[in-house]
Amino acid sequence: MSRLFETSESELLLDILRLRRDVRGNRFTRQEVSDSDVNKLLKAALHAPSVGYSQPWQFVVVRDNDIKRQVFESFTTENEHAATLFSDQKQQQYKNLKLEGILEAPVNIAVFYRPSDEPVLGQTSMSEMGKFSVVCAIQNLWLMARSLNIGVGWVSIVDPQVIKTALNAPQQNELIAYLCVGYVNEFLDEPELKQQQWQREKQQDEVVFYNGF
Amino acid sequence: MSRLFETSESELLLDILRLRRDVRGNRFTRQEVSDSDVNKLLKAALHAPSVGYSQPWQFVVVRDNDIKRQVFESFTTENEHAATLFSDQKQQQYKNLKLEGILEAPVNIAVFYRPSDEPVLGQTSMSEMGKFSVVCAIQNLWLMARSLNIGVGWVSIVDPQVIKTALNAPQQNELIAYLCVGYVNEFLDEPELKQQQWQREKQQDEVVFYNGF
Repeated sequence: MSRLFETSESELLLDILRLRRDVRGNRFTRQEVSDSDVNKLLKAALHAPSVGYSQPWQFVVVRDNDIKRQVFESFTTENEHAATLFSDQKQQQYKNLKLEGILEAPVNIAVFYRPSDEPVLGQTSMSEMGKFSVVCAIQNLWLMARSLNIGVGWVSIVDPQVIKTALNAPQQNELIAYLCVGYVNEFLDEPELKQQQWQREKQQDEVVFYNGF
Repeated sequence: MSRLFETSESELLLDILRLRRDVRGNRFTRQEVSDSDVNKLLKAALHAPSVGYSQPWQFVVVRDNDIKRQVFESFTTENEHAATLFSDQKQQQYKNLKLEGILEAPVNIAVFYRPSDEPVLGQTSMSEMGKFSVVCAIQNLWLMARSLNIGVGWVSIVDPQVIKTALNAPQQNELIAYLCVGYVNEFLDEPELKQQQWQREKQQDEVVFYNGF
């Protein structure tokens, strides 16, 4: 028989979902993240759903400081350009935000999508499904990290090609995420960008529709 | 102070991750899924991370049978074409698989990405980040469903434009997922496509690398 979960177990899951945060450098501590911890994160990721059971993910665990520095340089270049895209008022706020913890986090994990050479069941009409499977794995990893009281920050302000070069990645691989992983001083009660009034929280009735728009 | 989770709580999360399944029509039951249940799923989704706190998701809850039938017709058309893409041996196996539960599931949920008119923090170098945020929300919903002993199947063998038309979706919206939601007779112990030997399970050492490929 299938395992059935209790209400209290569902409520615990909601706590983990609700208290998960995107962590930036200012809250990572120097506490070591063991290989055993990293393996728990990867194990959680590998339980993700994948289109046609294709498991199209590849993970590169980075502890090497030279690689981290190359990624951080790419962030710096991309972030300087990014700031210019925002209007004057937003631009000043943007520049005051700390958006990554690449060098502070003891572990970084680059996550790639590896396309299949063969047709993939379920990916024939919607070609992005393979990438979406990789994202499901990342969310599993992120939730497992929170349940282990480990913080994760997803850095997307980087040039994927720079990271591929730094990691000697095969040409066909696509970078999906660059994650900073480490223990933290605290998990904020709310998303940082909500607290800092960068964006307001959307209410359910703004984003949920019934039987059509 | 931040809530810290215990080892037993992390282990429970692993159980939920491990026992979540993609459910197809043959295991959905006719048991009603209440609006209260649907709201729990949506609430879990809304706790997902999103790039720049953009919350770029829109959900359409479908109980209307006429809409379901339009989606099912699109599946049928796309699936007949998809079968032809596989080699002879795989093709026969493909045709024997049941890949959706659109009409059997009492609730369907179409999930869209709604692009922003303004630049989005974190999406300036990797333009797909908004779509990836929506996928994180879907994975949250899926896990919450499993903890409530509700099954979810993600149908990707559909023409997104047909679904957009059926739901009167704004032109700029992009379909990310079409989900079938309902109670089930059982949750399989393992992914169905693994059990049926469509694909083998990849081992961790095949997909995890250290400091580079």
